Amino acid sequence: NSNLKIFSLNSNEPLAAAIAKEVGVELGKCSVKHFSDGEIQINIEESIRGNDVFIVQSTSAPVNENLMELLIMIDALKRASARTVNVVMPYYGYARQDRKARSREPITAKLVANLLETAGATRVLVLDLHAPQIQGFFDILIDHLMGVPLLADYFKKKGFNPEDVVVVSPDHGGVTRARKMAERLKTPIAIIDKRRPKPNVAEVMNIVGNVEGKICILIDDIIDTAGTITIGAEALVKSGAKEVYACCTHPVLSGPAIDRIENSVIKELVVTNSIQLPEEKKIPKIKELSVATLLADAIVRIYENKSVSKLFD
Amino acid sequence: NSNLKIFSLNSNEPLAAAIAKEVGVELGKCSVKHFSDGEIQINIEESIRGNDVFIVQSTSAPVNENLMELLIMIDALKRASARTVNVVMPYYGYARQDRKARSREPITAKLVANLLETAGATRVLVLDLHAPQIQGFFDILIDHLMGVPLLADYFKKKGFNPEDVVVVSPDHGGVTRARKMAERLKTPIAIIDKRRPKPNVAEVMNIVGNVEGKICILIDDIIDTAGTITIGAEALVKSGAKEVYACCTHPVLSGPAIDRIENSVIKELVVTNSIQLPEEKKIPKIKELSVATLLADAIVRIYENKSVSKLFD
Ligand SMILES: Nc1ncnc2c1ncn2[C@@H]1O[C@H](COP(=O)(O)O)[C@@H](O)[C@H]1O
Ligand SMILES: Nc1ncnc2c1ncn2[C@@H]1O[C@H](COP(=O)(O)O)[C@@H](O)[C@H]1O
Repeated sequence: NSNLKIFSLNSNEPLAAAIAKEVGVELGKCSVKHFSDGEIQINIEESIRGNDVFIVQSTSAPVNENLMELLIMIDALKRASARTVNVVMPYYGYARQDRKARSREPITAKLVANLLETAGATRVLVLDLHAPQIQGFFDILIDHLMGVPLLADYFKKKGFNPEDVVVVSPDHGGVTRARKMAERLKTPIAIIDKRRPKPNVAEVMNIVGNVEGKICILIDDIIDTAGTITIGAEALVKSGAKEVYACCTHPVLSGPAIDRIENSVIKELVVTNSIQLPEEKKIPKIKELSVATLLADAIVRIYENKSVSKLFD
Repeated sequence: NSNLKIFSLNSNEPLAAAIAKEVGVELGKCSVKHFSDGEIQINIEESIRGNDVFIVQSTSAPVNENLMELLIMIDALKRASARTVNVVMPYYGYARQDRKARSREPITAKLVANLLETAGATRVLVLDLHAPQIQGFFDILIDHLMGVPLLADYFKKKGFNPEDVVVVSPDHGGVTRARKMAERLKTPIAIIDKRRPKPNVAEVMNIVGNVEGKICILIDDIIDTAGTITIGAEALVKSGAKEVYACCTHPVLSGPAIDRIENSVIKELVVTNSIQLPEEKKIPKIKELSVATLLADAIVRIYENKSVSKLFD
């Protein structure tokens, strides 16, 4: 693997280090600092001429800082004669701005795709995009990994009787994801159906499917302020659920999220390390699973010119 | 001017408001906020279909935040059917990363040019680029305004006898700028010639030119940590200068800058409002001149398809 180099930027160094270890290489040497005025200063401290370089960077908060680090690093690697510049972006920031929901809105997810290409990325590796359509925003190669198998495996190990379990989607947009999880766990699914009867009237929660006496596993791609998931969990308990677990790939966990989770009926929240959790967010209720092996396998397959989707067979 | 719209982002709203007033239009309505996770949320709150839109945004600190605001706004305007999207960038951040000074460095000034084009800017208006060569980084139209006339006019009004004054460049890179200022004030120039006799030995300051008994006006494009300018002023006084003034177009003033200026021999520092000074940097020694009229004139000339360089005849 002497032509394969992996560099970490500042968003998730522990994950990058774990990936490099799995791949069996040292992390590339580079310094990513700030000048006195706040401008990013990057120096690559080893030759990467002719190499296949992988940059590990999630565009989680601070999203604009992390995105600019990534773009500047891509520029530097390209100008330093890398053979390929592969962006490993476990969390793709701005993915929820993926369409014009209202007039005169930007489509920032597409802008980000264009910026990565303009900077000189030759390939992108992502995990659970908020909408799979974002793949089509790229003209360069993009590989899309799924977090569901990892999350499902964790719950399998709990040894629940599949008949006692139901996988629940917190909204209609997440049904496909819940379906995939349910297939792996061999359980039925349920859907939380939110409706606002009139403007300015509280939403009504209907549960589509049978949750009575069941162990419910709520699944989402992103948990941000945790409003949807904690209110959903509440509704499940009101409908007779025995226990509620929750899981997601990307623990954004902004604003009131940690408080809400701590005070919720959720028994355990299972997340991946696509986004690095700061110490203050590492509460006992949150279980972190590592995507390092998954990403390392994908990186080696890309490097060896093998199919990445085969990872999910 | 009904087809001319001016929008402000968050870096310098007072300047944008002053420009709009000079042009005789209201600032365009838009909201630029953050989602809970720190992602930028932009909404343009009036139709701009078919309009020539000017966005006023300096990419001063926080540079990455301000640059992303700008790129997302350009994207939104383009998708809202603006006829042209003109970026008014009084201060161009990352301009000092304009070449590979060492191996494997990025050229971020070029990256920024490419990002602006990719987002959909059709034209750019800048003021005193750190290096005029950055104009060539753009494939779209770029107009380059000069701050020297404004700064020179201020010193003219002091009524000094030109024979008592010398304009000083703090380094060899700034001689052309000092030359232009001196022509307007009809004075000679001097140059501070820094040399490091051996590595790890303090720099020696030589003054090229006669400053004895003179009123010196130091001029630079950017004053960042204010090391160069305050040490230069000291050297001028040691060489017999009577008084030292300093001026620059872009008051970056990061880190120790304000302390250094307050404790320096500099009598007055004259700057422009290309970068908005926060309250704590507005010290009595610093005099702020407005570039609003200059930028407003340029905007109207661009809108009317007239030559902007004519402004400097
Ligand atoms: N960072 C963000 N935080 C919260 N909401 C967002 C964010 N980005 C986009 N949105 C909104 O989320 C909606 C899209 O989410 P979804 O319907 O789940 O695809 C849009 O209405 C966006 O305005
Ligand atoms: N934001 C910044 N703050 C301080 N130095 C910088 C900054 N950006 C670039 N530089 C350095 O400044 C030098 C270029 O400045 P100059 O020689 O004045 O054109 C290069 O060596 C850069 O590494």
